[in-house]
Amino acid sequence: MEIAFLGMGLMGAPMAANCIKAGHDVVVYNRTPEKNEPLVKLGARAAATPAEAVRGRRMTLICVEASEDVEQVIFGENGIVHGMPQSGEPPFVVVDHSTISPIATEEFAKRLKNDFGALYLDAPVSGGTVGAQQGTLTVMCGGPLEAFERARPVLEAMATSITHIGTRNGDGQKAKIINQVVVAINCLATDEAVRLGQALGLDMDKVLSAITKGAAGSWSLQNLGPRWLAGDFEPGFRLRHLLKDLGYCSESIDHLEDKNAEYPAIWLALGIVARAVQAGYGDENIHAMEKIFE
Amino acid sequence: MEIAFLGMGLMGAPMAANCIKAGHDVVVYNRTPEKNEPLVKLGARAAATPAEAVRGRRMTLICVEASEDVEQVIFGENGIVHGMPQSGEPPFVVVDHSTISPIATEEFAKRLKNDFGALYLDAPVSGGTVGAQQGTLTVMCGGPLEAFERARPVLEAMATSITHIGTRNGDGQKAKIINQVVVAINCLATDEAVRLGQALGLDMDKVLSAITKGAAGSWSLQNLGPRWLAGDFEPGFRLRHLLKDLGYCSESIDHLEDKNAEYPAIWLALGIVARAVQAGYGDENIHAMEKIFE
Repeated sequence: MEIAFLGMGLMGAPMAANCIKAGHDVVVYNRTPEKNEPLVKLGARAAATPAEAVRGRRMTLICVEASEDVEQVIFGENGIVHGMPQSGEPPFVVVDHSTISPIATEEFAKRLKNDFGALYLDAPVSGGTVGAQQGTLTVMCGGPLEAFERARPVLEAMATSITHIGTRNGDGQKAKIINQVVVAINCLATDEAVRLGQALGLDMDKVLSAITKGAAGSWSLQNLGPRWLAGDFEPGFRLRHLLKDLGYCSESIDHLEDKNAEYPAIWLALGIVARAVQAGYGDENIHAMEKIFE
Repeated sequence: MEIAFLGMGLMGAPMAANCIKAGHDVVVYNRTPEKNEPLVKLGARAAATPAEAVRGRRMTLICVEASEDVEQVIFGENGIVHGMPQSGEPPFVVVDHSTISPIATEEFAKRLKNDFGALYLDAPVSGGTVGAQQGTLTVMCGGPLEAFERARPVLEAMATSITHIGTRNGDGQKAKIINQVVVAINCLATDEAVRLGQALGLDMDKVLSAITKGAAGSWSLQNLGPRWLAGDFEPGFRLRHLLKDLGYCSESIDHLEDKNAEYPAIWLALGIVARAVQAGYGDENIHAMEKIFE
């Protein structure tokens, strides 16, 4: 397919590379143009603006950082709305792989539909840079079935688990929020278990290998527990990005009709992550969150 | 081997059955003697007291509920110290499969060693009643290597994962505490994720199957998440037992030299579990802990 791909960051670049390798015709755009170069070598064409990237195409993928960035590449100066075809069939499709606010997502989808006749699919991913490189991401999609079906051949180039969570825009982002809530709280469990085990004088390598296959088992305990023990906090998924995602979670809870709903573990995770970012651990991997207690 | 097995509860009975099936010669004891009957049918002999159960034997296994129960069957009226051989070789070995206090464990081991010349191995298990029945438990052992080596042939009849965590008595119980801490906090993650997803109007079956294989994955999310959705709180592991175990965790933290150590997620889990037990959910499975917020 002929697509544009906006955002050549740590996730976007390998995702775009997998699209090219799967035979799609890709125009890439990035704010700092140097990051386009490896993709151009793989066969992409580089555009100077989002508007230019989508000219004559009927689909764009986006992978940037936050709600504001998505708004900018869509509606900002030189945003895609200034370049995309606004008539003809099939309608233009915007697929957003960024993890952003479900509330902002709903609004972007509505504006694109009403003012430009375009379809929107929120399609945040999980699996990290390794999953992006290997094409083994998990994609959670929200939006009209037509947008999902149009996007599917491209998603298959990047992901091994593709779920159409629901037809409302924002459903994909909400599913990603649920994912991040579990990631954050499971990480609290891992950090406190390893810290307490060390304080109790246990050989935690032995303990971890004894317990990870049972009812205490988690991706977190298996992958991040040994990294805490080894003092390895190299970022795969940065604490400041988790803080951003928990912010979207918090915003979503504020928008619930039930104002009395209680989520104490989510608030605890948010508090600890915020304090850890403030303490300077934002660019370390998420399991650095409990370094503030050391 | 010729052994005694004290405590024919939901865990002890299937564990003793697996010892008999593996060819060991087992004398069983239980406070309410009716529960001995299925084991007698399998070939065990039933004793009226712990003292009688261990007479002429050089090893006993124990699987009861709490520290006080272990103390009772060892040192109480008609406890094993009134029946076990206190001289000759090899020394008598007490293997405690109950999940009890590491502090009490150290004390029991010391008394047995000093006053009766016996060896002690704390060997709490995880894997639940299903693991006990299938002989696929995880055993975490603390105590002298000699006791561990003596017990190993019997442990192999009941468990597929057997780890000698350390040579200090209490190391097995401390490892079990670490296990329970992770179980409790991962369960908070599962409960809050499922509750929030429902409040956000998501199809949580789809979300769970999308996220459980990735970085959010855990035994808890995979097994307890769908049970929350199905309204299934049938006990496999009861909330009041988790409360007991978190009490031992709390006692162990109080005994740490570092009085400033912070474990906020552990305290949150303890608070929620305590409140849920008080609210009447103690005999439901542990994921009922967040029913208090519904």
